[in-house]
Amino acid sequence: MKLKIGVVGLGSMGYGIAQSVLRAGHDTYGFDVVPEQQARFISEGGSEGILPDTATMLDAVMVVVLNAAQCEHILFGDTGIVGKMKAGSVVIACATVPPDFARDMEKRCHASGVHYLDAPISGGAAKAAQGCLSVMASGTPLAFAAAKPVLDATAETVFELGDSAGAGSAMKAVNQMLAGVHIAMMAEAMTFGMTQGVQPQQFLEVISKCAGSSWMLENRAPHIIDGDYTPRSSVDIWPKDLGIVLDIAKTANFDAPITSVALKQFLTASSNGLGKEDDAAVAKVYARQSKLALPGEDSSDVHAPGWDD
Amino acid sequence: MKLKIGVVGLGSMGYGIAQSVLRAGHDTYGFDVVPEQQARFISEGGSEGILPDTATMLDAVMVVVLNAAQCEHILFGDTGIVGKMKAGSVVIACATVPPDFARDMEKRCHASGVHYLDAPISGGAAKAAQGCLSVMASGTPLAFAAAKPVLDATAETVFELGDSAGAGSAMKAVNQMLAGVHIAMMAEAMTFGMTQGVQPQQFLEVISKCAGSSWMLENRAPHIIDGDYTPRSSVDIWPKDLGIVLDIAKTANFDAPITSVALKQFLTASSNGLGKEDDAAVAKVYARQSKLALPGEDSSDVHAPGWDD
Repeated sequence: MKLKIGVVGLGSMGYGIAQSVLRAGHDTYGFDVVPEQQARFISEGGSEGILPDTATMLDAVMVVVLNAAQCEHILFGDTGIVGKMKAGSVVIACATVPPDFARDMEKRCHASGVHYLDAPISGGAAKAAQGCLSVMASGTPLAFAAAKPVLDATAETVFELGDSAGAGSAMKAVNQMLAGVHIAMMAEAMTFGMTQGVQPQQFLEVISKCAGSSWMLENRAPHIIDGDYTPRSSVDIWPKDLGIVLDIAKTANFDAPITSVALKQFLTASSNGLGKEDDAAVAKVYARQSKLALPGEDSSDVHAPGWDD
Repeated sequence: MKLKIGVVGLGSMGYGIAQSVLRAGHDTYGFDVVPEQQARFISEGGSEGILPDTATMLDAVMVVVLNAAQCEHILFGDTGIVGKMKAGSVVIACATVPPDFARDMEKRCHASGVHYLDAPISGGAAKAAQGCLSVMASGTPLAFAAAKPVLDATAETVFELGDSAGAGSAMKAVNQMLAGVHIAMMAEAMTFGMTQGVQPQQFLEVISKCAGSSWMLENRAPHIIDGDYTPRSSVDIWPKDLGIVLDIAKTANFDAPITSVALKQFLTASSNGLGKEDDAAVAKVYARQSKLALPGEDSSDVHAPGWDD
């Protein structure tokens, strides 16, 4: 069945999601604060429309924004869409947000007769464009049913984690804390190894086959080995996501000391101008401190002035 | 070719190694400070002998002890074997030790005409018994050649990391710091998830398929889910191994903040009487602090008196 589906936020994830929805044959509306992104999507076959007016026509809206504040603004801000959406339509909310925020959004959507799927996503831009995301989803059976055509078009794996909002966001927070720590720890171990004569390429070859491996190690270590910090996922994602995790932890009186230290490493990277680089650039925090040259670096990097930790 | 091979240290790893060497058809001598272990191995087909006298006959000795001090005692203590070993025989040293220590042992073995392979092992007791260990090895070509029959009998994968001692131990240190941190981080994330309603079984099912996964998460999380703290690898391994890592790091002026915090979690576990439990018991540090009942626990565990962090 051909539906009218909106994707809000045409960043690297959202754009790929919109392409996947379009490819599945739906009337697909892409919305972004950057007009050029929206125009580009229309030129590829997207439907024309502007928010919030277009929202009245949509069967489903996938909200692919950066954080809770942006999500709330899209849904319930001055030009929020939920008040315009038709009864029985569904909001599919993909940002990493606190579980309590997801529960609040669900409640407010239900008050307008709109379904809400708490649906944080995982997989990166390439998987988004392929329609192969992992989605950590929770919501009512009706929310899942309404979202199904969109999930079918965009996700390879949908984890159904419960019948109300919050569970999806909780699992995403758990995943992000592990993912962020594993990136920083990969950097810590790789640079430690360099002080002992273990070269980065050898590190990856051996450790990826041993008990010290992680998904993130196998995925991010090659970026350092290639000296390629083109942001597939940027350093600045992690102060945001680990910050959310620690905010939740504080509310629960939970001490997460390893996560706290990993956050500090990303903050140091960000405060030294690496925020827009690939998150593997957290290795530079360790490298600068120990005067190590990472692959592709030279002595001007090793002795970079003004480096501040 | 049938050789005479000694295995020193018949703990969970060493016993399996000795069995694998025996199965490969060599005259195999097992030595241990616990006479019952040695007698048990003889009853399974091991050869009879005592150290250091037997050392004169051996073509290779695999030293599977806990740490550098025990290794040095075996090799060069009052009843050390190296002075007794024949020229051209080889010591295969498997403990996790500082790279400088391995280099020193190599030098002293060479002074006696004995080859030395720096050969830390990975894989656990089950793999040891199957002859399927991973070995992170470095040493001279002659040391590798002399060790080959033993490695063939015990290892599935031999990483050849360099032509002198130290490189093997360096890679092992890198692997251990990752492995230890990943265990503690798995515990941190699983218990954090519990505060948000994510049950341990669901944690494992979802995260093991997502970017937050690690080899250790997939291996150790089941121990917590099963409430089974029978030590496959004990908590007390980690203060030792992460301590070695941080000693090396200090010598290199390298700050390893994530490793340091993970060490603290294992020390807290150990100082609260969990040292002999499976290392997944580090989850109890988090659980006690947040008054969570792990699988198999009840309220007397949650409110255990005298818990000290």
